[in-house]
Amino acid sequence: MKPKLTLVGAGPGDAELITLKGLKALKAADVILYDALANAALLDFAPLTTPTVYVGKRAGKHGSTQNEINRLIVESAFRYGHVVRLKGGDPFVFGRAQEELDYARSFGIECNVVPGVSSCIAVPELRGIPVTSRGVSESFWVLTGTTKDHQLSPDVARAAESNATVVILMGLRKLPEITALFTAAGKAAVPVAIIQDGSTPREKMLLGTVADIAGQVTEEVLRSPAVIVIGEVVRLSPAWVVAKLSEPQIYAGARSRISGISQKIR
Amino acid sequence: MKPKLTLVGAGPGDAELITLKGLKALKAADVILYDALANAALLDFAPLTTPTVYVGKRAGKHGSTQNEINRLIVESAFRYGHVVRLKGGDPFVFGRAQEELDYARSFGIECNVVPGVSSCIAVPELRGIPVTSRGVSESFWVLTGTTKDHQLSPDVARAAESNATVVILMGLRKLPEITALFTAAGKAAVPVAIIQDGSTPREKMLLGTVADIAGQVTEEVLRSPAVIVIGEVVRLSPAWVVAKLSEPQIYAGARSRISGISQKIR
Repeated sequence: MKPKLTLVGAGPGDAELITLKGLKALKAADVILYDALANAALLDFAPLTTPTVYVGKRAGKHGSTQNEINRLIVESAFRYGHVVRLKGGDPFVFGRAQEELDYARSFGIECNVVPGVSSCIAVPELRGIPVTSRGVSESFWVLTGTTKDHQLSPDVARAAESNATVVILMGLRKLPEITALFTAAGKAAVPVAIIQDGSTPREKMLLGTVADIAGQVTEEVLRSPAVIVIGEVVRLSPAWVVAKLSEPQIYAGARSRISGISQKIR
Repeated sequence: MKPKLTLVGAGPGDAELITLKGLKALKAADVILYDALANAALLDFAPLTTPTVYVGKRAGKHGSTQNEINRLIVESAFRYGHVVRLKGGDPFVFGRAQEELDYARSFGIECNVVPGVSSCIAVPELRGIPVTSRGVSESFWVLTGTTKDHQLSPDVARAAESNATVVILMGLRKLPEITALFTAAGKAAVPVAIIQDGSTPREKMLLGTVADIAGQVTEEVLRSPAVIVIGEVVRLSPAWVVAKLSEPQIYAGARSRISGISQKIR
């Protein structure tokens, strides 16, 4: 029994957005450690006898629990053999995958990686918002609202001044600060989409502008996890045309069918 | 027979990096139109009777051939029914997918989207370079070297001044211009990785710094398609440690096994 770690990206939520290679890893796993953001339905692909362990982090205890997860990976590898670490989206997009790899490697554990579909690109895409579109946006910048020191990164102000489509993960709590930076950069009229639980049956989208969106977000309207997209590409969503009549609006229901996304729920 | 279009992301090159949903679309296709960057081995997943059409663009004729592709999609949908448009990486990362969607929709064709694993994140990841890593890089900015007007985007200069990991697709020909902008921003010593044909058996990686990498790139050493990564995260690649002895170095061979990537070929 050789200790081994495979980090697998589960994709944005829809279980069918895992890769074939990720699926093969699940089938070959001796134990699976899975995140809050990975679709638990994926565990059904593993043999019935494969133990599965939920390692979702508790809010406010990130530091200690990441260490716990690192230790659990190493202990599981030596106890069971092949550990599959199933992480939401792509493991290396704010996934702390590097810390898990480094820790496992320090014990001489063989490490492999299977990339996943990242929510930063796929979640807007499934709602008809392309992160790039020739003539509208020729780059995109992906940031987090929750950095190591809990402060908004100084790059958010630079992002506000750029022509990039700006995608912010884990930024819902910092939304007033974020929109203030965009307003200061003269971007008050730029459209914004916030998509909660993208690609799942719980999916919701809120549309608005830099000027008005923060005022619309309450716990009742939208919760984490959410992807914030700021940029002219938001206008390309078929839902935007409907929303213009009386914005902001919330759109609900998981669907990858672009043609059906303009259904209003309120 | 209902005309229908499904845009499918094929992933970065390795056929097993397609999603389950993408695979299902291939199996249900009445005709498949595929790109130069999509792995042709994926066509084997389609029924033997499904016609497949190669629509790779010829260099220097992008404008006219995109129009040809758009027309071919619409003609195929009315002739065969369900068109699967298989595109390398994710369709909406510099993939001109929006133009294909808009054109098809203007004929009333139902359109669906299946996101793919994007090379901008996955190709560096498979070589041990995370686009984000807590404490090293808390954002990443993805740009193209080939904009609509063939000029380097003004955002490349802004990217050089930011703290983001900078990922540039289709930028190999503009490498001297790109590194000049980073040098002007005081980043001459920042590490750079250029990865050709990522995740395939033809994969090659060149490592260097902003100051020296452009001088190392010739047609013999590296060709398109290539992903350029500029940022401190490049140092996290196990290959970097080896390369430091006598950089720059080229590393070859497709492997998603992080533990094996430091094999030198020259």
